[in-house]
Amino acid sequence: MMPEGQNTQVQVKRLPEGIPVEEDFILVVAPIPEPKQGEFLAETLFLSLDPYVRAVMSGRHFFNAPCSGDLMRGRSVSRVLQSNHSQYDEGDLVCMESGMQKYAVSDGTDVRCADTGVAPMSASLGVLGMPGLTAYAALNGPGQLKEGETVLVSAAAGPVGCMVGQIAKAESCKVIGIAGSEDKCEWVESEAGFDACINRKTENLDTQLSNICPDGVDLFFDNTGGDIQALVMTKYLASRSRVILSGLITQYNLSVAPPGPNLGNLCKMRSTVIGFVVYDYPHLWEPFLREAKNWFADGKFVFKEDITEGIHTAPAQFCKLMRGDNFGKTLVKVAD
Amino acid sequence: MMPEGQNTQVQVKRLPEGIPVEEDFILVVAPIPEPKQGEFLAETLFLSLDPYVRAVMSGRHFFNAPCSGDLMRGRSVSRVLQSNHSQYDEGDLVCMESGMQKYAVSDGTDVRCADTGVAPMSASLGVLGMPGLTAYAALNGPGQLKEGETVLVSAAAGPVGCMVGQIAKAESCKVIGIAGSEDKCEWVESEAGFDACINRKTENLDTQLSNICPDGVDLFFDNTGGDIQALVMTKYLASRSRVILSGLITQYNLSVAPPGPNLGNLCKMRSTVIGFVVYDYPHLWEPFLREAKNWFADGKFVFKEDITEGIHTAPAQFCKLMRGDNFGKTLVKVAD
Repeated sequence: MMPEGQNTQVQVKRLPEGIPVEEDFILVVAPIPEPKQGEFLAETLFLSLDPYVRAVMSGRHFFNAPCSGDLMRGRSVSRVLQSNHSQYDEGDLVCMESGMQKYAVSDGTDVRCADTGVAPMSASLGVLGMPGLTAYAALNGPGQLKEGETVLVSAAAGPVGCMVGQIAKAESCKVIGIAGSEDKCEWVESEAGFDACINRKTENLDTQLSNICPDGVDLFFDNTGGDIQALVMTKYLASRSRVILSGLITQYNLSVAPPGPNLGNLCKMRSTVIGFVVYDYPHLWEPFLREAKNWFADGKFVFKEDITEGIHTAPAQFCKLMRGDNFGKTLVKVAD
Repeated sequence: MMPEGQNTQVQVKRLPEGIPVEEDFILVVAPIPEPKQGEFLAETLFLSLDPYVRAVMSGRHFFNAPCSGDLMRGRSVSRVLQSNHSQYDEGDLVCMESGMQKYAVSDGTDVRCADTGVAPMSASLGVLGMPGLTAYAALNGPGQLKEGETVLVSAAAGPVGCMVGQIAKAESCKVIGIAGSEDKCEWVESEAGFDACINRKTENLDTQLSNICPDGVDLFFDNTGGDIQALVMTKYLASRSRVILSGLITQYNLSVAPPGPNLGNLCKMRSTVIGFVVYDYPHLWEPFLREAKNWFADGKFVFKEDITEGIHTAPAQFCKLMRGDNFGKTLVKVAD
């Protein structure tokens, strides 16, 4: 059924320089779109905010950079309101690329049923969604995680990081996290069950790594790039280690990409660095969700969310994420 | 039979700063060593000079750095003169780690029979030795070379580079080399049969690569590191490309390792970077030699050698190699 009222969109006002500010975005009222044959209309319930969108805005991503006036990208959990699509019915809960808006139409491309088992539906944008699949596919695929290995993950309190650590702990690995606040480190150690979590803002990472993993790490799951990447790749790789390049949040805000680490140590340690893109692993959705729903149903796994309410809060919430001031999967609750 | 006379060794006089000079080495006369039970004595015929030895001298290799007065490392083709080892007989031609000296004893560790088919025995230190195996194992192993791909290799006139290109051409690949002189480029194109070879000293690499491989390269075999590595890894990787880190000759002469390329493009292109060490592939010696001897016997493959005569020429020849002024596999002929 077509809803009453109007749509609200978050559009790009200007491309950000450095860390985005609220003034880089504009809220625009627009008509609610009508689904054509083969399309459905859905109402956004939860909107996912993701660091990679900042990289897209810099033109350093395989998605094209937006222009002023373009709708901001964003996945959502949405409820189908009206369907002219054979596979989706009114009332269905779906994960979709809706963009940052209250109502969106879709032809079914990249749409999945939002299926979280006993976990809240918002988890389908985080630990039971793309971020969770990222962790699962990277560790089971090119990361070749083996029982008992030493695993290091940056942005450990985020949805990718906390899943990397918890999956690795389930494989009897020694897991070390890196995070950006005392609260996050406390949660990563005591709730998510990591062996240790280093506060990158207050602790000396070099000293801590040499104490905690003097023989280096077998798998480094890099969500940040920057100084952490350089230190780990030049000093803390174990022989035949794997580095998963998953995110580079330290450089998404920069207009020019900085130099990276010297790669000589990769040769010395016979290491492999893998540029990882979760979109290459759609075939792992099914095994991932089957396993992961059980992990949460059994109460073995935990996750953290950082949620604000109302589409109008999306710009500020995205800016907070890009400052690293979020704690957990960053979402906007748009409707009930 | 024990030979008459004395041994001559090339020892480290002082650790080089920057590009090595002859004064960093000293020629020392010493007694000819006597083989104990389980050992053999061999006379060096050809001595191999290899860039990695410079990295060892900087302490940036998994072999320990030498001290003043230590024998310089070096593999050789040698003739067994006297044997107390069950596997080797007087007269056998072997490849061994002799160090830079006229006579050496060995307990058989890392010794192979020098077996080159119709090719000259010196080839067992180059295209039919470790360098050839490096190319073969990297392309067939982690490089996952596929028919028809675009392959780029630096130091293309060297024994690793020319084998990479010729093996890839045999797989119907498009092969581009990079080399440091007009002579080398001419040889790489007209003799070794590469599709193109770029002169890194006189041509603009960026311009040439954008002309020759506008869609990027599927496999980049990196023998040099430095600016070439940075340019290729940030601008010329194709989707799902592989980078083989085999040598970093540009930085072996530096006291401090410089920064490397930004790794963001690896994510974007879903590329993999592999720190490659030939010592991990001893099981490929047999299939490699079986195939490679045929390639040379059939006259399909070519190679180039840069040979001086006499153990006393080893320091100058090594310095030439480290300046990049050699042309082909760099050897010293020590005895007939």
